[in-house]
Amino acid sequence: MLKLQQLRISSSLLSPKKFCNFFPPKNPSSVITINNKPILNLSSQMVFHTTPSHASKYLFRQLFEKDSSTYTYLLADVSHPQKHAVLIDPVDKTVDRDLSLIHNLGLKLIYAVNTHVHADHVTGTGMLKSKVSGVISVISKASNAKADLLVESGDRIVVGDLVLEVLPTPGHTVGCVTYVTGDGPDQPQPRIAFTGDALLIRGCGRTDFQGGSSAELYKSVHSQIFSLPEETLVYPAHDYKGFTVSTVGEEKQYNPRLTKDKETFKSIMENLNLAYPKMIDVAVPANMVCGLQDPVPTTH
Amino acid sequence: MLKLQQLRISSSLLSPKKFCNFFPPKNPSSVITINNKPILNLSSQMVFHTTPSHASKYLFRQLFEKDSSTYTYLLADVSHPQKHAVLIDPVDKTVDRDLSLIHNLGLKLIYAVNTHVHADHVTGTGMLKSKVSGVISVISKASNAKADLLVESGDRIVVGDLVLEVLPTPGHTVGCVTYVTGDGPDQPQPRIAFTGDALLIRGCGRTDFQGGSSAELYKSVHSQIFSLPEETLVYPAHDYKGFTVSTVGEEKQYNPRLTKDKETFKSIMENLNLAYPKMIDVAVPANMVCGLQDPVPTTH
Repeated sequence: MLKLQQLRISSSLLSPKKFCNFFPPKNPSSVITINNKPILNLSSQMVFHTTPSHASKYLFRQLFEKDSSTYTYLLADVSHPQKHAVLIDPVDKTVDRDLSLIHNLGLKLIYAVNTHVHADHVTGTGMLKSKVSGVISVISKASNAKADLLVESGDRIVVGDLVLEVLPTPGHTVGCVTYVTGDGPDQPQPRIAFTGDALLIRGCGRTDFQGGSSAELYKSVHSQIFSLPEETLVYPAHDYKGFTVSTVGEEKQYNPRLTKDKETFKSIMENLNLAYPKMIDVAVPANMVCGLQDPVPTTH
Repeated sequence: MLKLQQLRISSSLLSPKKFCNFFPPKNPSSVITINNKPILNLSSQMVFHTTPSHASKYLFRQLFEKDSSTYTYLLADVSHPQKHAVLIDPVDKTVDRDLSLIHNLGLKLIYAVNTHVHADHVTGTGMLKSKVSGVISVISKASNAKADLLVESGDRIVVGDLVLEVLPTPGHTVGCVTYVTGDGPDQPQPRIAFTGDALLIRGCGRTDFQGGSSAELYKSVHSQIFSLPEETLVYPAHDYKGFTVSTVGEEKQYNPRLTKDKETFKSIMENLNLAYPKMIDVAVPANMVCGLQDPVPTTH
């Protein structure tokens, strides 16, 4: 396993002069209502509900795998001489698509990162490592999975000038993390949070497998994600209704589960009566070793 | 039917002072290669492959309907006092989702727009009109479909300060149009082209029904879309591989059909051997009247 300190050397590539000088205006907040129901405050209206505004320096692509409704994210610093890139939550089935896009765009894939040990699909990390030399696999230390780089709270993954900070958000699984872009002026504005299954758009991941805990998830989302600026863009690992993005402000106001008090949330999560995850016995063992394509026995 | 001239009165709401002062830097173009194969030029790398950079003024959301792999787009001018909004290519099945989002975001839906008479799903336009008073349905005059507003080449749809220009792009159907955001400094940078089924990401719509013509489609894409600035974002009506966005520059270089010469393109389109569109006999009659929910007889 590589040591994080070694990888952080790439942060020396950071150049404060490279960023695109764009900052959303700071609008004064004012509450507006529809039918006497408050909606998002005006400042969030003006700034929040948009796509990332880092047009000329950072590349961002959202990709979708239909069978498991999984989003994979491609980020790159296209101002970096080698156009360093990271994939977040790649899927084995779509590795060739992702690599074709990376090739077309002239990027160099450095990291293949997972938000957690997925139970509904096999990660593409192992295949990416076998197809592109030098790719570094990343997952949380708390996941107990194997990877080249095991991250924990406070660690930073550096891709060109782009920084992804690691926030521990357990509850869906014991090792879930959220990756959020840095807070500096050379970072995407608004910030972008890749929330995995901890926070979904108007939902959240189930908590009944893999060390899941509804109490833990409630604490994670409220302390780690809802504490981010309201305009922070929320890009989850899945969506089942066709939404592509939300914001912290929107989820704090409209998430039907996480806007409730903790006891109500726990009750909701304990009464979901969801089916046994059909892929879990294949996906979890594979994903504990970064999705390497060795034959994996299933338990049923 | 409303007259376009009446609707254009809303363009008087345009205020040149309202825009967010962000312009991507103009980078000099320089060709780079991988394995001696040229990839996108540097200026496109820096500017093209990103999401729209109009964070503080315009809202943009991409929405997906899984059964027909259709993208619906929500755009709004959130600096407008009433936050005027437009939906492009809404789907009947997801109207409630879209209206819930519009309500959450505090927007006022003004237009429900179609790029063409769809054959694979029923448009949500009719349902939107029945659920939200004042919504104006829009489709091209050349489609011969019914709508409140029939647009043709050179027309502009104005939503707050946001302008959508109408480009005729027939070939998939006789009445296909592309809506592209305006070219002014108060418009999204890069421009955004909603290409319907004329240009898909690394593909294009079939040309064997509804007045389709491969020769016409080739001419449309090359003259109307490929002539836009290379950094223009391409948001199509569908994607079947999980891509969410492309650029004119990317498609000019990597589209496997439309990079070919015209005769090769015609040959490709004439030999696709696609199945008969399973929804066409329901969808087309419904969509010729904006998807109004009257019972529609099917021919088989």
